[in-house]
Amino acid sequence: MIKKGKLIILSGPSGTGKSTVVFKAMEGRADLCFSTSVTTRPPRSGEVDGREYFFIDQARFDKMVENNELLEHACYVSNSYGTPRPFVEAQLQKGMNVILDIEVQGARQVKEKMPEAVTIFIMPPSMAELRSRLEGRGTDTPEAIDARIARAREEILEADFYEYLIVNRDVETAANEFSAIISAEQCRFDPLLAKKIAE
Amino acid sequence: MIKKGKLIILSGPSGTGKSTVVFKAMEGRADLCFSTSVTTRPPRSGEVDGREYFFIDQARFDKMVENNELLEHACYVSNSYGTPRPFVEAQLQKGMNVILDIEVQGARQVKEKMPEAVTIFIMPPSMAELRSRLEGRGTDTPEAIDARIARAREEILEADFYEYLIVNRDVETAANEFSAIISAEQCRFDPLLAKKIAE
Repeated sequence: MIKKGKLIILSGPSGTGKSTVVFKAMEGRADLCFSTSVTTRPPRSGEVDGREYFFIDQARFDKMVENNELLEHACYVSNSYGTPRPFVEAQLQKGMNVILDIEVQGARQVKEKMPEAVTIFIMPPSMAELRSRLEGRGTDTPEAIDARIARAREEILEADFYEYLIVNRDVETAANEFSAIISAEQCRFDPLLAKKIAE
Repeated sequence: MIKKGKLIILSGPSGTGKSTVVFKAMEGRADLCFSTSVTTRPPRSGEVDGREYFFIDQARFDKMVENNELLEHACYVSNSYGTPRPFVEAQLQKGMNVILDIEVQGARQVKEKMPEAVTIFIMPPSMAELRSRLEGRGTDTPEAIDARIARAREEILEADFYEYLIVNRDVETAANEFSAIISAEQCRFDPLLAKKIAE
């Protein structure tokens, strides 16, 4: 019998290093995968259907919403994005721990639908550090950085329903903490297992 | 500011390999210590006050009970044993994660007094395996082993209030799980920390 995987909801301000932390944690374990979202935006050059996204049309998307097949969905720049429940369920059944990298509002939707999901929020060690990371990227104007910092503050203050908080001081430690949280959650007391062993 | 340690309540049937698992986990981290109990039984040859136990007389013990200085206490073979709260608190304040290796009944007492304590139950992979480990020790009569197995079954069925379950199939894996649980618990969402970082 394969033990069902855990759904891991991961959020954190842009620039916190979420993906770097998760990829580092993935190096050490084969039981982690990202969820693949559906989107109505057209594929960009090099993007592969089923890898970056499942690319679908608006009619199919609306149908999925109607059939409650999306764990969460949102609209950005007139394109729709969502997390397909059947894909996630299939991975969980295979024993994979599935990571959803989503914003706080989407996280709240998913947690309501799947209360057994594990919620992890990643933060920078300070707002000054976040600013310096965003500046280091060199991709944003000073105004855009100010806006990101303001948005990060908002997200952090909305994040009080998360179960775990990882402060990303260095990637190695943060990845170990991420991995430890998943291992610990797999050890949640299971009364059926305990009873079975006692037989 | 030192982050306060966690109180770890650890239980499991005799013969499950609890101490071996914990000592293995301790090799990799310096933030774990065992709680030292008080007892009214006289020290045995080689035992050092404050190491194996704090050796105290019955009057002092009764006073500690009266002053609510014991997190749990019990009587075996006309001697009294207890877990001194001031000792545990002092270690926690220093940032140490303090392990209480106690029975299910004592665990229930401590969890009521300190609900923030983390409760971990360790089990053998099967009752047959437990029997073979107890037989391998060569210290018990077949009748004593039967009694231990019966007691183990009872304990397992009383253990449903524990938060975590470790099945000790091999020491290395079990020690890693034990360590992961402590690391994960240290990442519990802390709204004050989140707020402080957002400032």
